[in-house]
Amino acid sequence: VITTDALVENVHFRRDTMPLRDAGWRAMASNISDLAATGARPALATVALGVSADATRDDILELYRGMVEAASAYDCEIAGGDITRAPSLVISITAIGEVRPSRVKGRAGARPGDIAAVTGPLGASRAGLHLADTQDMLDEHLRNEALSAHRRPQPRVEQGRWLAASDHVHAMMDISDGLSTDLSRMCVQSNCAAYVESVPVAPSAAEMAKHRGEEPQLYALAGGEDYELLAAVAPRAFAYLSSRFAKRVGGPLHAVGRFREGSGLYVRKGEREEPLAPTGWDHLA
Amino acid sequence: VITTDALVENVHFRRDTMPLRDAGWRAMASNISDLAATGARPALATVALGVSADATRDDILELYRGMVEAASAYDCEIAGGDITRAPSLVISITAIGEVRPSRVKGRAGARPGDIAAVTGPLGASRAGLHLADTQDMLDEHLRNEALSAHRRPQPRVEQGRWLAASDHVHAMMDISDGLSTDLSRMCVQSNCAAYVESVPVAPSAAEMAKHRGEEPQLYALAGGEDYELLAAVAPRAFAYLSSRFAKRVGGPLHAVGRFREGSGLYVRKGEREEPLAPTGWDHLA
Repeated sequence: VITTDALVENVHFRRDTMPLRDAGWRAMASNISDLAATGARPALATVALGVSADATRDDILELYRGMVEAASAYDCEIAGGDITRAPSLVISITAIGEVRPSRVKGRAGARPGDIAAVTGPLGASRAGLHLADTQDMLDEHLRNEALSAHRRPQPRVEQGRWLAASDHVHAMMDISDGLSTDLSRMCVQSNCAAYVESVPVAPSAAEMAKHRGEEPQLYALAGGEDYELLAAVAPRAFAYLSSRFAKRVGGPLHAVGRFREGSGLYVRKGEREEPLAPTGWDHLA
Repeated sequence: VITTDALVENVHFRRDTMPLRDAGWRAMASNISDLAATGARPALATVALGVSADATRDDILELYRGMVEAASAYDCEIAGGDITRAPSLVISITAIGEVRPSRVKGRAGARPGDIAAVTGPLGASRAGLHLADTQDMLDEHLRNEALSAHRRPQPRVEQGRWLAASDHVHAMMDISDGLSTDLSRMCVQSNCAAYVESVPVAPSAAEMAKHRGEEPQLYALAGGEDYELLAAVAPRAFAYLSSRFAKRVGGPLHAVGRFREGSGLYVRKGEREEPLAPTGWDHLA
């Protein structure tokens, strides 16, 4: 499998709030996460780097260090690249992974009745984004959770490979643009609807939302760059799969809702059901 | 083999002097040329596109049309991509090709005594660049040569595959940054020097140089983006290889000089030899 993903300064990150080493990590991690979503083992990556006139040699080295760290952490080799002048920093990465073709699930396989499941709590990366202006709002433990989710996201390669090996998993993708947006994409591709019952919110997101008087669920539904995986799982197999997942990979598989006939996303509001609009990242906004 | 190469607006092209469709062609062609330099058959490509706020939907489609045209012309499939907001248009392409590993020559194999050969006359792309301000300087035939070299360069895939199949070719690369710069790189990698005897200048480059009172050789030595191939060929085999090349691939293989012991580039100046500085494209200038 091959994937490509670009990170652009002042679009995806700002140099004054994100160390370049972390920007390098994130750029590589987002590509590795795309591989994880296919159940692949990362193999190699190429890097096309656009460098603005104000970037120093050290800036470029820091960027590369972050990329190399993320690649190394997932046994991915940086095989080569290109460097050119650009109006701002642009990190464009292509990654290649290996997977048995029969295991690649894609986004189109979810069936009405399937459980929508995620590999971990969501929203911490968004909490980390807010830390730039509100450092003191979280205690140290939660601050670390939020910061590392935001700056050093961990693609779910092992989890993806494990889930891809199961025939009970019908569709899989990573949640890079927010659960509501990505779940909505899976619904469109799978030609069905989804009902969201409960979303696991990361502790740092819950606390940050409280401090800012915001809705914790919004962090989990709309916050991008969590890089957990979203899977459609056959309902009869879910309990079994989830308990084996917890044992083998560590951490529970969270059921967030169910796929159903129709189209669109729905969420419970008190006693009623309401449509849920995709509110995550728009790549051209 | 895998290669990646990015084209950035206002660095590699300007929207007021280059139709976006041609910019798309060039971005794809420069990647395919890198494959050609390894003797590979193009297989697939991915495209990461950065789009500035002033680019319309039609602009993006025109870019893609040019990319698709170039890819199709060389049997290369665009397998996927990414699109994101950016401060200017950024076209970052990764291409994958297939070649028997034993045929890949690399840049490090040139030996003292080898002939430095190029697959075609140089400088037309630079002449095309000047056409933006001096439309009327060339007659129609030469204007077309210069414009198509600049806007629709033809990577030498067939030539590269043919040369790669010969054991008499010791090193190969494409001339994307100007002959003096790229020959100098081959010398550094091969740990030898080169003496430049005569460089084939494209007719449009010769004519444009005359009009502008410039040195025609400079167009051929310093002008980038010609996308011919540079090869180091065993001297005893050159005459035979060159005549077979002309028959099989069309057009002669031009001897431009010789590799020798030492380092650096040299050129004849009247009766004397002088060092030649690499004067081509610097990616961070």
